[in-house]
Amino acid sequence: MGSSVTVRILGVGMGPQHVTAEVADALRTVDYVLGAEKSADDRLLELRRAILRAYPGRNGPAELVALADPQRDRSAGLTTPGYESAVAGWHDARAAQYAAVLRQRGGTAAFLVWGDPSLYDSTIRVVEKVRALLKGQADVDYDVLPGISAPQLLAARHRIVLHEVGRPVHVTTGRRLQEAVAAGMDNIVAMLNPPPERLDFTGLADWTIWWGANLGAPGERLLSGRLADVVPQIPDARAAAEESDGWVMDLFLARKT
Amino acid sequence: MGSSVTVRILGVGMGPQHVTAEVADALRTVDYVLGAEKSADDRLLELRRAILRAYPGRNGPAELVALADPQRDRSAGLTTPGYESAVAGWHDARAAQYAAVLRQRGGTAAFLVWGDPSLYDSTIRVVEKVRALLKGQADVDYDVLPGISAPQLLAARHRIVLHEVGRPVHVTTGRRLQEAVAAGMDNIVAMLNPPPERLDFTGLADWTIWWGANLGAPGERLLSGRLADVVPQIPDARAAAEESDGWVMDLFLARKT
Repeated sequence: MGSSVTVRILGVGMGPQHVTAEVADALRTVDYVLGAEKSADDRLLELRRAILRAYPGRNGPAELVALADPQRDRSAGLTTPGYESAVAGWHDARAAQYAAVLRQRGGTAAFLVWGDPSLYDSTIRVVEKVRALLKGQADVDYDVLPGISAPQLLAARHRIVLHEVGRPVHVTTGRRLQEAVAAGMDNIVAMLNPPPERLDFTGLADWTIWWGANLGAPGERLLSGRLADVVPQIPDARAAAEESDGWVMDLFLARKT
Repeated sequence: MGSSVTVRILGVGMGPQHVTAEVADALRTVDYVLGAEKSADDRLLELRRAILRAYPGRNGPAELVALADPQRDRSAGLTTPGYESAVAGWHDARAAQYAAVLRQRGGTAAFLVWGDPSLYDSTIRVVEKVRALLKGQADVDYDVLPGISAPQLLAARHRIVLHEVGRPVHVTTGRRLQEAVAAGMDNIVAMLNPPPERLDFTGLADWTIWWGANLGAPGERLLSGRLADVVPQIPDARAAAEESDGWVMDLFLARKT
């Protein structure tokens, strides 16, 4: 048996303001933080650095080890069977990079997860792959600490509960919106959305929508009202958010009226 | 027009360890915190006090103004139309109590919400009622800060994502479980659960369940595995959690295998 490595998967919400007491404690004691660098000018990596600076340990902020993000095969369409295998291949490539660093450096490493690790995030799956890759070379133990997720911040900003009294909320992706409607869902959170012209809002004109982009960032934008009135305003709001922050991510809650 | 009052609805997760930086800042600056006291020996009120002690302002922990919780009419069954009106009446009674205190004291008041204000919590609705009650007497402005919710902590403890890659998660109440299954849902978080003998698990024997009680508290209990194997273990685990903490709350994720 080789060395042992501890990995902490830390949800950091939408920025330093959302870091919980237990995540702050973890940030002060880890040896280094692993991150993927998507480009030389990676704003999300810069946000991670801002979080590390906000919660320094005794010797200053934890070191951020930035690894070039492996290219994902985007030739497969989002709805074809190739999509899942393209994602799996990308996770494999990431896992191999992380495994190499963890094997070499050991100690306690952290991953900072934007939002919460339990919703539309691959970190837990990648760390499981790292663990399998290092089997026989290093014991990898890991834990997960939750963070504020985007649907919660959307609800807080609009000052709403995500569902009506005692009723369900269905959380899905924008491209599965009509699948949810067909199943009779009438209160739907949609995440990972493409621009609205690539979403299918058929039949939802009279629903109420609560929409937000870049929540918690300077470019934050909010819209709400009758869906047919709000959707045409989304492209401009997305453009304004992207203009401000250099990136744009949006989500919405849609509810049958 | 009368005075003005600021209300802050603060999600505090499952305890002081989950308090976010922005909620900690809010706790240090509010004038007082409003809470409902369900009994003379109210453990949840004690947990709120522990949070206030953990984040004191310059003059010590914020004052907790505990109001006797109005009795809810529990004669109506949970599934009858009377349920919603009983809940509404209880909210009205609470709102009247809070309005009286806010009108008298003014300043900046906070509500500490266990978990997150956006999921199965009535604080936002009650504050909207308070606002309506005080119309013409005091301007009530309020904001909402999110907190870690129980499903997120359940996922973190079990080190899972709440859904399979790119798939939905349906969040509902235990008593609506079969309604979700009938709609074709195959990945369901159930909250506000009664003891398992009062839940209907028909047809779910081979599903996988990830269950947790009193998450984040000393009595925390976790179970996972094939649903038919796990459900018979829940009563003992609930009893152990209650024995430890004096209260028990559980939830689970069930997924078709």
